[in-house]
Amino acid sequence: MPFKHVALLGLGLIASSISLALRRNSPDTKITGFSRSEKTRRKAEEIGLCQVCQSVSGCVSGADLVILCVPVGAMRETMKIAAPHISKGAVVTDVGSVKVNVIRAVSSIIPKGVFFVPAHPIAGTENSGPEAGFSTLFEGRWCILTPTTQSSIAAIRDVKKFWQSLGAEVQEMAANHHDLVLSVTSHAPHLIAFTMVGVADEFSKVTKSEVINYSAAGFRDFTRLAASDPIMWRDIFINNKDAALEILGRFTEELFILQSAIRRQDAEFLQKYFERTRKIRRSIIEAGQDTSEPDFGRKG
Amino acid sequence: MPFKHVALLGLGLIASSISLALRRNSPDTKITGFSRSEKTRRKAEEIGLCQVCQSVSGCVSGADLVILCVPVGAMRETMKIAAPHISKGAVVTDVGSVKVNVIRAVSSIIPKGVFFVPAHPIAGTENSGPEAGFSTLFEGRWCILTPTTQSSIAAIRDVKKFWQSLGAEVQEMAANHHDLVLSVTSHAPHLIAFTMVGVADEFSKVTKSEVINYSAAGFRDFTRLAASDPIMWRDIFINNKDAALEILGRFTEELFILQSAIRRQDAEFLQKYFERTRKIRRSIIEAGQDTSEPDFGRKG
Repeated sequence: MPFKHVALLGLGLIASSISLALRRNSPDTKITGFSRSEKTRRKAEEIGLCQVCQSVSGCVSGADLVILCVPVGAMRETMKIAAPHISKGAVVTDVGSVKVNVIRAVSSIIPKGVFFVPAHPIAGTENSGPEAGFSTLFEGRWCILTPTTQSSIAAIRDVKKFWQSLGAEVQEMAANHHDLVLSVTSHAPHLIAFTMVGVADEFSKVTKSEVINYSAAGFRDFTRLAASDPIMWRDIFINNKDAALEILGRFTEELFILQSAIRRQDAEFLQKYFERTRKIRRSIIEAGQDTSEPDFGRKG
Repeated sequence: MPFKHVALLGLGLIASSISLALRRNSPDTKITGFSRSEKTRRKAEEIGLCQVCQSVSGCVSGADLVILCVPVGAMRETMKIAAPHISKGAVVTDVGSVKVNVIRAVSSIIPKGVFFVPAHPIAGTENSGPEAGFSTLFEGRWCILTPTTQSSIAAIRDVKKFWQSLGAEVQEMAANHHDLVLSVTSHAPHLIAFTMVGVADEFSKVTKSEVINYSAAGFRDFTRLAASDPIMWRDIFINNKDAALEILGRFTEELFILQSAIRRQDAEFLQKYFERTRKIRRSIIEAGQDTSEPDFGRKG
């Protein structure tokens, strides 16, 4: 681990998981943290998450790695406050789920002599807040770096080592390609899950308790995604609008094709389609990105 | 457990789970099983699942409970072959995910003096076949009975006791209401998951390995649903067409509303919507139909 003092701006699920993983894997690292919310700061202090600071400036002073862990829409404002207090030669990175707009928002206010390496760890749960973190969140997961002209080769190498020290595998990618890939694997699935849960909640011919009791038949998998942090997701869709709309457009086309096959009772088409999608599941398990356990660890 | 000899027609995930749960909870019960596929019969024999029979007639002879565990589209044909061999006074039930069409297909061929109690256990995984079963699949899950005029009060009571003995909670419901409820909680979510996985698989701007590697960000939850048995699902959509199309129509309307909010950058609308859907998740966990564990039991 190439850094001695890591400053966490934001104390949610990702920041708290970074802190717990660092303390386990690199116990000598100094970890400072700040949240705008007093309640969050107090909670983080109670559970002894890290050295909780009462100001952004106190948090970043002397840090050689500053990590923006706030929602994407709050990164520019947070960086504005932090910038004058960041040490020369330090590295700034972030954990935002959107990269083009974060780079656009943050790049121009990174101080001279400070290096910026945008990053996105592909890991998370539906829970948020400082008590949601756990030290193994990044193990075996991917972290994507989308370097810019403000990322020196040494800074990229060090951020890579940092994520590897938390158990992640690191890949570099262009920021706009990242945003398209994540639209497919994350943003569109989440929006669709939000939508389906909204429909179920409003469909008056079926009562709420029926939806809840019989959710084990598939619906509950959607509710996990649809329970993710509302502000984080609001910011993702606002900041990755074009890629999200492109994938949702493709999705709607495809849904109409399947709806039409149901209407026409085209059994053969449906079966072939479902056989194809089943194969993709197997590839994900082979790639170690999910478990094949029959009850997927759910205990009743 | 009110039955002495249970005959399983079909040896997939549900039948094998019934067999394992019966052997644990009611070890004196005789269990016979049959599958049309020789390979499946051989597998079931190898793992010692139950007394595997080489014909439908051998399987149902002498049974006081016959359970149709084949895909919905195969129930009528299977029942036709079984009917002449079912004992007078026996009870026939099924595990089909669709009830109106199963009742329509099977009722007229139930022999006189045999009672028919349609049922649907709301439990399952994405795996299929005789080796996919496990004895706790039904614990804490719901089983819905949709009685008809062919279900005597005693037969309903006994089928209820049967499912309770496997750990399930039992509820009665009209068949057409069942089909609507399951459209919301199961059929529409599955079709949407199949669609999203199909889109990801075909979207040429993102490579297959990118989709697979970065699936932990949400997509993998869809692939679990989209890996479910293709023939089972083909039959569900063919046999519950009207309810499925109704919910999918509502879903499309709602998706357009959210897409439009993204296009208009309506941050407030999106945040409020996501806050509402998050609450539904909490209700499902409180109802014991899912776990709130941060890694939902996945081990990386």
